[in-house]
Amino acid sequence: MRNLVLASIAATGIFLFVAAALGTSSPAPSDESRLEQKFDALIAPNDLRDWMKVLASEPNHVGSPHDKANAERILGWFRDWAWDAHIETFYILYPTPIKETLELVTPKPFKATLQEPPIPGDSSATAREPALPGYLVYQSDGDVIGGLVYVNYGMKDDYETLERLGVGVKGKIVVARYGGGWRGLKPKLAAEHGAIGCIIYSDPANDGYSIDDVYPEGPMRPYHGIQRGSVLDISLYPGDPLTPGIGATKDAKRLSIAEAKSLVRIPAIPISYGDAKTFLESLQGPVAPPSWRGTLPITYHVGPGPAVAHLAVRSNWGMKEIYDVIATMNGSTYPDQWVIRGNHHDGWVFGASDPLAGQVALLAEAKAIGTLAKGGWHPKRTIVYTSWDAEEAMLIGSTEWAETHAAELKQKTVIYINSDTNARGYLQVGGSQDFQHLVNQVAVDVTDPESQVSIGERRRAKLRVAALEPGAPERVKAEAKLAADPAKDFLIEPLGSGSDFSAFLDHLGIPSLDLGFAGEGDFRGVYHSRYDTFEHHTRFVDPGFVYDALLAKTVGRLVLRAADSDLPLQRPSDFADALGEDLEVAKKLLKQKREEAETQDKMLRDHAFQVAADPTKSSTPPAPMSAVPQVNFSALDNAVTRLKKSAKAYDDALAKQGPKLSGAQLARLDSIMLNIDQTLAPDAGLPGRTWYKNVIYAPGRFTGYDAKTMPAVTEAIEDRQWGDVDRAIKITAEALDAYSNQLDQATAVLNGAPTANR
Amino acid sequence: MRNLVLASIAATGIFLFVAAALGTSSPAPSDESRLEQKFDALIAPNDLRDWMKVLASEPNHVGSPHDKANAERILGWFRDWAWDAHIETFYILYPTPIKETLELVTPKPFKATLQEPPIPGDSSATAREPALPGYLVYQSDGDVIGGLVYVNYGMKDDYETLERLGVGVKGKIVVARYGGGWRGLKPKLAAEHGAIGCIIYSDPANDGYSIDDVYPEGPMRPYHGIQRGSVLDISLYPGDPLTPGIGATKDAKRLSIAEAKSLVRIPAIPISYGDAKTFLESLQGPVAPPSWRGTLPITYHVGPGPAVAHLAVRSNWGMKEIYDVIATMNGSTYPDQWVIRGNHHDGWVFGASDPLAGQVALLAEAKAIGTLAKGGWHPKRTIVYTSWDAEEAMLIGSTEWAETHAAELKQKTVIYINSDTNARGYLQVGGSQDFQHLVNQVAVDVTDPESQVSIGERRRAKLRVAALEPGAPERVKAEAKLAADPAKDFLIEPLGSGSDFSAFLDHLGIPSLDLGFAGEGDFRGVYHSRYDTFEHHTRFVDPGFVYDALLAKTVGRLVLRAADSDLPLQRPSDFADALGEDLEVAKKLLKQKREEAETQDKMLRDHAFQVAADPTKSSTPPAPMSAVPQVNFSALDNAVTRLKKSAKAYDDALAKQGPKLSGAQLARLDSIMLNIDQTLAPDAGLPGRTWYKNVIYAPGRFTGYDAKTMPAVTEAIEDRQWGDVDRAIKITAEALDAYSNQLDQATAVLNGAPTANR
Repeated sequence: MRNLVLASIAATGIFLFVAAALGTSSPAPSDESRLEQKFDALIAPNDLRDWMKVLASEPNHVGSPHDKANAERILGWFRDWAWDAHIETFYILYPTPIKETLELVTPKPFKATLQEPPIPGDSSATAREPALPGYLVYQSDGDVIGGLVYVNYGMKDDYETLERLGVGVKGKIVVARYGGGWRGLKPKLAAEHGAIGCIIYSDPANDGYSIDDVYPEGPMRPYHGIQRGSVLDISLYPGDPLTPGIGATKDAKRLSIAEAKSLVRIPAIPISYGDAKTFLESLQGPVAPPSWRGTLPITYHVGPGPAVAHLAVRSNWGMKEIYDVIATMNGSTYPDQWVIRGNHHDGWVFGASDPLAGQVALLAEAKAIGTLAKGGWHPKRTIVYTSWDAEEAMLIGSTEWAETHAAELKQKTVIYINSDTNARGYLQVGGSQDFQHLVNQVAVDVTDPESQVSIGERRRAKLRVAALEPGAPERVKAEAKLAADPAKDFLIEPLGSGSDFSAFLDHLGIPSLDLGFAGEGDFRGVYHSRYDTFEHHTRFVDPGFVYDALLAKTVGRLVLRAADSDLPLQRPSDFADALGEDLEVAKKLLKQKREEAETQDKMLRDHAFQVAADPTKSSTPPAPMSAVPQVNFSALDNAVTRLKKSAKAYDDALAKQGPKLSGAQLARLDSIMLNIDQTLAPDAGLPGRTWYKNVIYAPGRFTGYDAKTMPAVTEAIEDRQWGDVDRAIKITAEALDAYSNQLDQATAVLNGAPTANR
Repeated sequence: MRNLVLASIAATGIFLFVAAALGTSSPAPSDESRLEQKFDALIAPNDLRDWMKVLASEPNHVGSPHDKANAERILGWFRDWAWDAHIETFYILYPTPIKETLELVTPKPFKATLQEPPIPGDSSATAREPALPGYLVYQSDGDVIGGLVYVNYGMKDDYETLERLGVGVKGKIVVARYGGGWRGLKPKLAAEHGAIGCIIYSDPANDGYSIDDVYPEGPMRPYHGIQRGSVLDISLYPGDPLTPGIGATKDAKRLSIAEAKSLVRIPAIPISYGDAKTFLESLQGPVAPPSWRGTLPITYHVGPGPAVAHLAVRSNWGMKEIYDVIATMNGSTYPDQWVIRGNHHDGWVFGASDPLAGQVALLAEAKAIGTLAKGGWHPKRTIVYTSWDAEEAMLIGSTEWAETHAAELKQKTVIYINSDTNARGYLQVGGSQDFQHLVNQVAVDVTDPESQVSIGERRRAKLRVAALEPGAPERVKAEAKLAADPAKDFLIEPLGSGSDFSAFLDHLGIPSLDLGFAGEGDFRGVYHSRYDTFEHHTRFVDPGFVYDALLAKTVGRLVLRAADSDLPLQRPSDFADALGEDLEVAKKLLKQKREEAETQDKMLRDHAFQVAADPTKSSTPPAPMSAVPQVNFSALDNAVTRLKKSAKAYDDALAKQGPKLSGAQLARLDSIMLNIDQTLAPDAGLPGRTWYKNVIYAPGRFTGYDAKTMPAVTEAIEDRQWGDVDRAIKITAEALDAYSNQLDQATAVLNGAPTANR
């Protein structure tokens, strides 16, 4: 405890600055600091290289022999490193392709190659086992012929634009480009608008030659690179589609495929821009709006006509076994308080950067912690290292495990710390914002190998430079301003979904962090393709495994500090401040919606859309927006005000009384704070998607991965569901009040400490 | 006079609205309205078609036989239409190409085609006389070999970016794409940075396949389309490079070529994207920043290396005759008050949309006015119709004529009204802002043929729709808000340069307007190419010559009202309001510069640029910005306040007393207001470019065509020339005070009217 508090002071830039200015020497290293130095010394980039080389040597998707072999290999390593490890197997619906056809029928016959040719000198050329072809898992088999329509990213606003252009997709096959929102929304929204098939392609503007040279000359997506992926509807629930809310154990009660609401209802296929060009250049109809145009050397038309395509997908809809590796090291003092650390091990093909870059960092941490344990050190709390399977299928390994052990996890978990992909670059971190200060404390203690300043300082510098870019959003400018003040913590982002933290944070309410480095090495161009290989990673993403090792040092510190701290790790004021900002954003959004509706109403009455329209182009005025009612935010205003007050009282009390607590008081305090974040995830969950319990953090229903804070409120406003706003405010305010109540209990414990001033 | 005042009331939306609401009938048509109806009836789209067909039938650039023939043809028509017309000939330096070579030497030999192949069924295939090849007139002949560097648009900020990338252009040949600022700045800035040659190409992102289908399938620039143009340095002076400030008459005193400061000092050539691709894809070095990338199917690298090119241009630097056609119709009441109307007749090749679309509108006006005159109507003021030559060379015909007749023009000209290109679409209008209300009055009286509302209302609707676009600038939103209020006039843009109004407005201080329709028909893709043909215009730009005829109706009304109004045409309050806004913008700009400098200074001291930089990429911190001093704006504040007050007093007095003035008072008033705008163009002119006299309106030194209002002040701030700001404020304030003084004299005349209330 003491160590952590000391470290937290030493960790601020201000302290270091003052110390330097006064010419004082650094404080003597604490126990914590000595432990972390030992830990660092045990992280060997060559280990990471060796592990990645073997793990990425063959395709390792769900159901592949190498996926199972990797799980067993990882199990063996954990055991070698003094962990109590086992494999937990789940049984999931996982279709694999038998036959895929995509061809242009009209105006000229063309058969899509659907192939990623091997690249000499690269794993893509030498692996023995065939990889999965370009495939979207959980699309619906079918054999359809239809006219093509280009729908840009295929997001909600794109369909609004299409409506204004007078183009419908009913009975059509849509062509969407990757980007703009989560992949699975593309076939989902297409089907909802009446489309019978969905083609998703990678435009060179987004991750191809327009970004950098293409592989193998550079890192970006080559002509025939294909992005695979899952299209399971995460807006409803992630995990095995047949077992929502429960673990997919062998004897679990399962839905039928027909009952599984998270499955897409039309056939879909991913293709390369090499293949896409022929389909797109065959389209006529309106020219695509400027923001819809990619960088293929063609004029982007929306269609329909004259292009007609034939799309057929047939899959084997069998069950597959998946293999989560779970490794435990019991805590010496608080064995029933768990710090959980996870990263998945399954990839789409070889999966070097995604997920093995994060996986080998995790392994390095586990090996180092094991070595420390062999040397006599033991964590106070129990540490659980997890290597998930089937993340790519839609977070299945982690979700099924979390669902299976929900009660115990809610009772015992202090924090879940996740990573996934990793690259040379800058610290990226999101998570429960009451853990923001912990992250900042670690970030000042880890040195960036390129700049020789701390990863926190480098992140701050990058934010400040980014804010100078022409057109930088106001949010970035505000963050940069904050980042320029070393006395203040940098912000961490709220989390949505898209990696294995989702079941912990969104479903169980367990506080979570997600970390990685990114921004210099670049794996966007091989993402989910056959070219995400060991060779690509070592040439373009993290040569020398420097940043993969840095991830291990960063996350390892979080794990060690979380495991050894006697005092709770949250600083609730940071959470309260973030919520205060979010509430202001929600109010501004409402105001903006009102102004939009009023402006549009006046324009419709003035016939401004018809008058401005080019009569040679089809165009209809937008559908009238509903009028925006007055909204009573007072329940949320009160809840946020209360939270700020409670948080300040707690933070002040912790700083003052924390170090003086008796063992019994400490135990009482920890037990209150251990599950306080779960108050944010009431059992009723979010309206309309009750698997998502957390009413503060959720992925957006129409963004997929990105977070919406206070999602019920924000999305009711965004979607103009005025009837839902009042209830959304109520459930959100209630959750915040519950958090404040529990926090007040913790403050009472702190103020009951023996030497408290009264 | 009475007619105009009546029309001006009838013209406001409010009046019409009130009339409609009360169920009153429209007022009986005024004399003016009857005249304009007759005028409209004389505008025949088929005339315009026939004239364009013959004028655009052969290449008509300066020095071509067809250019001279067109001038004589136009002269003949004017004479047929009862105008007193003549050709005024000037003698200008006008180099034409003898030999052009551009080839890639390394890494693979490639010879640029430099050709625009003919298109079957198009004038480009059938014209007998060879067109000018791709050529930049007033480039400097030379024969150079050098490494290539891609410089994006080749503007000032692009060279700052290059510096940060650690890439210099000394001894290199730069490749710039068209766009981002005026063409001539590209070789000029390249030479200033030490480059030895300049290639300018048209990127498909800007006017090629990424915008729409390419000609002949669609309107946009085809694979081998080339944009010709002049690179004479208009930031110094337009017109014949050898006769700055004086007319290029046969016996004018001329500079030697070596003395002509407006000539570029390095060889330069324009090429197509078909040719450019090979050069660009041979470059390595840093990947171009995101905003630098076009849509060729390549990765845009900046260079240098390995691409080395050979560029050679040799020209015939002879003198050429140019032919301005001047047609006069004397005024019956005020023969020494001139309303001048102009449009150029020379094109780069066939010049259908540029300039003949505007030229045929002008001819239609002239024919209709002539017909009215034959029918017994005579303008009160003298009308001068002008058809300029050598505009494409750099506004030469109009500039030499304005310089030759400067004294008389300053004495007699009420207004100069210009047009140039024209297309189907929305009214575009810029000019002296004290004439804004006149434009608004006309705009409500002309009906848009597509929407059947007035061209003013359509312009307003278009602005309102544009303001809904994501990311619409605040300026557009403010204009749209104004446009939504029918009680308020829409704004007209200030003018910079780029067409024949420049000598009138910028050099002589004569108030000017520039009008055209644009936004639906699209000639960007054939701009200055061999494909700007009659066929292209009639298929894609203005089928049926509907909007070319509409331009005639719009400008014709301006000419008729300006010629027949007894009262002055200005409404100075509009000018004062615009100046007030401009002053606020200048102050904000200064504040922003100060904040930028402070932020950058702190970042440099914190080494934020180095810390954030990717060490595998060359990058240097930006050069430190000079600190921003406090600036005393009070002289301008006072001048604007005074102007607003004087303007209001004048406008009120005019409305009240104008109709009551005696003939002598009217003459006195007109003589004061005729040259009041010239107070804005003191003889000293702008610091550093004294050809530009107007201290309120000028083209930006680093934008080329776009206007800078209060240019001395704005550009001193933009360029961080803090030492120049005080003097700039002084000369600008003095000019405004002179305007106010003269306005007060006019108000005194008004208030001296016989029945004035005292």
